[in-house]
Amino acid sequence: MPIVTVQVTREGTTPDRSSVSAEEKAAIIKGVSQVLLDVLNKPLESTYVVIEEVDLDNWGWGGLPTVQYRKQRAAAAKS
Amino acid sequence: MPIVTVQVTREGTTPDRSSVSAEEKAAIIKGVSQVLLDVLNKPLESTYVVIEEVDLDNWGWGGLPTVQYRKQRAAAAKS
Amino acid sequence: MPIVTVQVTREGTTPDRSSVSAEEKAAIIKGVSQVLLDVLNKPLESTYVVIEEVDLDNWGWGGLPTVQYRKQRAAAAKS
Amino acid sequence: MPIVTVQVTREGTTPDRSSVSAEEKAAIIKGVSQVLLDVLNKPLESTYVVIEEVDLDNWGWGGLPTVQYRKQRAAAAKS
Amino acid sequence: MPIVTVQVTREGTTPDRSSVSAEEKAAIIKGVSQVLLDVLNKPLESTYVVIEEVDLDNWGWGGLPTVQYRKQRAAAAKS
Amino acid sequence: MPIVTVQVTREGTTPDRSSVSAEEKAAIIKGVSQVLLDVLNKPLESTYVVIEEVDLDNWGWGGLPTVQYRKQRAAAAKS
Repeated sequence: MPIVTVQVTREGTTPDRSSVSAEEKAAIIKGVSQVLLDVLNKPLESTYVVIEEVDLDNWGWGGLPTVQYRKQRAAAAKS
Repeated sequence: MPIVTVQVTREGTTPDRSSVSAEEKAAIIKGVSQVLLDVLNKPLESTYVVIEEVDLDNWGWGGLPTVQYRKQRAAAAKS
Repeated sequence: MPIVTVQVTREGTTPDRSSVSAEEKAAIIKGVSQVLLDVLNKPLESTYVVIEEVDLDNWGWGGLPTVQYRKQRAAAAKS
Repeated sequence: MPIVTVQVTREGTTPDRSSVSAEEKAAIIKGVSQVLLDVLNKPLESTYVVIEEVDLDNWGWGGLPTVQYRKQRAAAAKS
Repeated sequence: MPIVTVQVTREGTTPDRSSVSAEEKAAIIKGVSQVLLDVLNKPLESTYVVIEEVDLDNWGWGGLPTVQYRKQRAAAAKS
Repeated sequence: MPIVTVQVTREGTTPDRSSVSAEEKAAIIKGVSQVLLDVLNKPLESTYVVIEEVDLDNWGWGGLPTVQYRKQRAAAAKS
């Protein structure tokens, strides 16, 4: 009876969207539940999946808020 | 000094409400803190309780988003 | 389908024990599951409870490891 | 940069083992990271996966420790 | 590659604000990432920080929702 | 009343040690509690810090267990 928690930033996969879509969430739920079935033989109905979307301001990486860190990395990649 | 995290779907207990009410949250906080006092003798003032309400789209069960899984189970129960 | 996570320090409730006993864990599981049934009408079989025991060294309070913080408070209480 | 936390009971998939094997852990890590790549286009190197094995005594279901709940269900299935 | 999760109540540090500001979040991210670098020599770019703001209703302390517990303590401090 | 959870791999900072030392844990607890005091004015005694050490096998990065991913990166850096 696994519990899988998936934390992602709240942003879209295309420029016109600002969050993960319902279809994408369903695909994540299906995919990770299947992994637990395939690897550990856990029946689908015993797995809970919780998706947590985290605002970009609330996610830090490299000692910076994500947006600033991405800019820094993009600038470094160019130089 | 326990920490109790309670994750529930964001939905009401009656059809006219779409989330857990403030009274219900207070009752959960009171109840689980009391369990820790009764069983482990932890003083109420040393217990933190955090309630996380999770959107139905973000909670998966049976490899599906919750709403779809419930429909599937309800259909199976009828047949 | 709630998930309740209970984090407590790994220590006994009596001097001769160094961890939470199996009976105490069962009582915690029973108690918090019952709270979710009573308050939100969640069936017992849809609630998962996960108990995490945390070594005393790994739990901080008051900016100190727990054991040191307790000593500090006990000393302050005497003075 | 997702974080995926997988909580499972500490037990083997065959009677001769008492925990998840290193190969199974590697397969879980590979599988869930791939789901995030496929669905949200997250590069593998930005995904962290944390597997938490939970002792059977510390996992509750149906208001009971897991082992007792499984026995109860098995008995109910027979009757 | 540490993951640091910071859970705080959703409220401002001054009366005119009702949540943690973007500047405060950036300072938390910078500060805790630096601690991991200083103490464990973890490079900044390997540390993820996730800040979770919890509504006051959803945080319990002393067996009560936070706002009620604070009132109770303030009243006790006066008497 | 913040809760700070610090997840790190269970390994030493020098070759002769296989886990985080008690002194390092105390420094982490002190450091992150101080950040919350400095930035959000949270009193030290209201902050809980929980350190979770995760076995290397149980931490995935780049779709691989950590040790394999580090080897892959080290090999790539040389070429």
